[in-house]
Amino acid sequence: MDEKIILASASPRRRELLERADILFDVIVSNSDEKYTAVKPEKIVEEISCGKAEDVAKSCDRDDVIILAADTVVCFEDVIYGKPSDTDDAFNMLKKLQGNTHKVVTGVTFAIKKDEKIDYRTFHEATEVSVYEMTDDEIREYIATGEPMDKAGSYAIQGKYAKYIKSIKGDYSNVVGLPISRVYHELKAIRTELD
Amino acid sequence: MDEKIILASASPRRRELLERADILFDVIVSNSDEKYTAVKPEKIVEEISCGKAEDVAKSCDRDDVIILAADTVVCFEDVIYGKPSDTDDAFNMLKKLQGNTHKVVTGVTFAIKKDEKIDYRTFHEATEVSVYEMTDDEIREYIATGEPMDKAGSYAIQGKYAKYIKSIKGDYSNVVGLPISRVYHELKAIRTELD
Repeated sequence: MDEKIILASASPRRRELLERADILFDVIVSNSDEKYTAVKPEKIVEEISCGKAEDVAKSCDRDDVIILAADTVVCFEDVIYGKPSDTDDAFNMLKKLQGNTHKVVTGVTFAIKKDEKIDYRTFHEATEVSVYEMTDDEIREYIATGEPMDKAGSYAIQGKYAKYIKSIKGDYSNVVGLPISRVYHELKAIRTELD
Repeated sequence: MDEKIILASASPRRRELLERADILFDVIVSNSDEKYTAVKPEKIVEEISCGKAEDVAKSCDRDDVIILAADTVVCFEDVIYGKPSDTDDAFNMLKKLQGNTHKVVTGVTFAIKKDEKIDYRTFHEATEVSVYEMTDDEIREYIATGEPMDKAGSYAIQGKYAKYIKSIKGDYSNVVGLPISRVYHELKAIRTELD
């Protein structure tokens, strides 16, 4: 029998990606404080996703479950951009990203709870995103849509920012917030192993 | 004043991409027979999009309009894949594409009708798409969703095929059916020119 998946994320985008892949899941949002000690973005998102998965794995009293946690950041010129704190912050991020190529990195952790033990598997996926030049008016108009405020890097590739995306290199859904094809295939491998 | 856009396509995906880019438009579906004389995929889609734009431009009695037409194909190993004729055809296409990298090419034509003259602008956009290996069961399961039947190459990247897409290189919306960021910027340039 398939182990139940628990998504340790409140993100509606992650939920939608899992649904589209026909992966059944429950949601238990992690209360992890998202602290990290790593320096490289790839390691930071892995560490944060691991903290989220661990938090849910330890607080949840169910066995035979696979907890899936993820963390996504935008990196440009060695700076990490998370969610904007306000519209000025969003403006500054979008102003940096326009006319340039940045990287979106998602860290993913599976916490496999079985026979009262927890086994962790962590990986990251990176996608390069090239953005057209934007005028300040276009940036302000985009911020006025409200889309940037709860998104890493202040944009939604699947939303009204699409007209400014020149090209990407890597997995598209990774930019949305979860590398769904990698997740699907890792889960398939884990389940084959557990059978 | 902005010239009215007329989309010469019945595709709901193209409509949605234009709406998301806040481009206002009417729809007049072309009756062009999609014939072509070109040999290279890039030229074939340009030629077909041009035929569609011309058909609508000539049959429509409105002036001060920009007609937008597009044609999308999937190319792999010098073979062009359009929409499948039946489920066997879809199976054969998906069997070819799995485990490989193919190219999606969209040809786009703007027919600018102004002062009773028609001016044409045509370009194409290509995106590389890498697909995970799929078992025959996975292919059959995907066909059973019904998604492949009206799509070039028998798949919808924005649908249940997403879990099989390893990575892309280029514009994502181009694979959906219209390179929306290029269309937005070309339109912006045309309108600046016309002003």
